[in-house]
Amino acid sequence: MDHHTLSVLVEDVPGTLTRVAGLFARRAFNIHSLAVGVTEVPGLSRITVVVEADSHQFEQITKQLNKLVNAIKVVELVPESSVQRDHLLVKVGADAAVRAQVVQAAELFRAHVVDVCPESLTFEATGTRDKLAAFLEMMEPYGIRELVRSGTLALARGPRSLTDRAPAR
Amino acid sequence: MDHHTLSVLVEDVPGTLTRVAGLFARRAFNIHSLAVGVTEVPGLSRITVVVEADSHQFEQITKQLNKLVNAIKVVELVPESSVQRDHLLVKVGADAAVRAQVVQAAELFRAHVVDVCPESLTFEATGTRDKLAAFLEMMEPYGIRELVRSGTLALARGPRSLTDRAPAR
Repeated sequence: MDHHTLSVLVEDVPGTLTRVAGLFARRAFNIHSLAVGVTEVPGLSRITVVVEADSHQFEQITKQLNKLVNAIKVVELVPESSVQRDHLLVKVGADAAVRAQVVQAAELFRAHVVDVCPESLTFEATGTRDKLAAFLEMMEPYGIRELVRSGTLALARGPRSLTDRAPAR
Repeated sequence: MDHHTLSVLVEDVPGTLTRVAGLFARRAFNIHSLAVGVTEVPGLSRITVVVEADSHQFEQITKQLNKLVNAIKVVELVPESSVQRDHLLVKVGADAAVRAQVVQAAELFRAHVVDVCPESLTFEATGTRDKLAAFLEMMEPYGIRELVRSGTLALARGPRSLTDRAPAR
C-alpha cells in the first residue's frame, strides 16, 4: 500500500465535500489526510487528499472522482515533481526547568512558538510528513498535550497551474 | 454574519467526515474552511471548521454536531483565547527582472520559497487569515498562477487540552 496524493479541483457548491468524502467512505478507503480551501479562481475549491491504496484501488478512486459532477479536474501529484507540505499546531508540556531545552529542540525543525504559559508551549510547524513525524518524536518525551493537524497541501513544481485549462467560469 | 471556529473531536472511523460535511451541506451553511487530521490520541481525529453564521444558526450547528454519534466533543474557539493559523502554498509569476522584488515582499510576511523556476516562484506561508489575505494582496500584481490553502488550525491558549476529559479508548 502506497501513499498517493490527489489534487481535485471542484466547484465550490454545497455538498461537494460531502460527495467526495462519501465516495471514500463507501469504499472504506483509508484517507490519510484531506485539505480543502479556495483557489486563485473564484468559485473553484481545491481538495488535496492523501490516500493509502494499492495501484488497482487507486485507479478506482481516480475514476470515481472523475465521474463526480462537481469535479473539474483530478490529478495525482507525485513527490518527485511536486511540493508537499503539512502544517500542525502542538502543545507540549514545558515548565521553567525544561523550557529552553524544548525551544532549542523545536528550533532545529524551524518550528516557532505561538503560545506560552507557565506549564506549556505551543508550536507551529510546517514541512514534509517525515519532517513533522521527526519533530513530534522529538517533542514526545516532554508530553504532547494537544495536537491539531491539517491535510497535506501540494502543488506541482514548475510554472504551470491546474487551473490553466479549467473551463471558463 | 460572523466567523465562528469550531473544534470537533471525532472518532476516526470511515464515514465521520461525510456525516459532518453532510450536516453543513443539508442546511446550506457556508463552510469557510475545514481541516481534518489526527490528534495526540490514537483513534481520535480533530476537525476544525470555520463557518459564517448568525448566532441562531451557530447554535443550531453546534446542537446538530453534538448529536452526531462519532462526535466526542464540540467546542467553539474564540480568537481572544485561542491560536488560529492558516497555511497556504502560492505560485507567483516571477522572471529574473522581478524575482528579487517578489522574494523581498514575501520575506516581510515570513513566507519562504519552496520552488523556483525561470518563470515563477512558489511560496509557503502561515499566519492568521488577515495576514495571509494581506500577503496574497501583495503578490497579486505579479500574477497568482496557483493557490492551494488548507483549513484554519486552532488550539485553545493555555495548558489544557480538548482531549483531557475524553472517554478512555
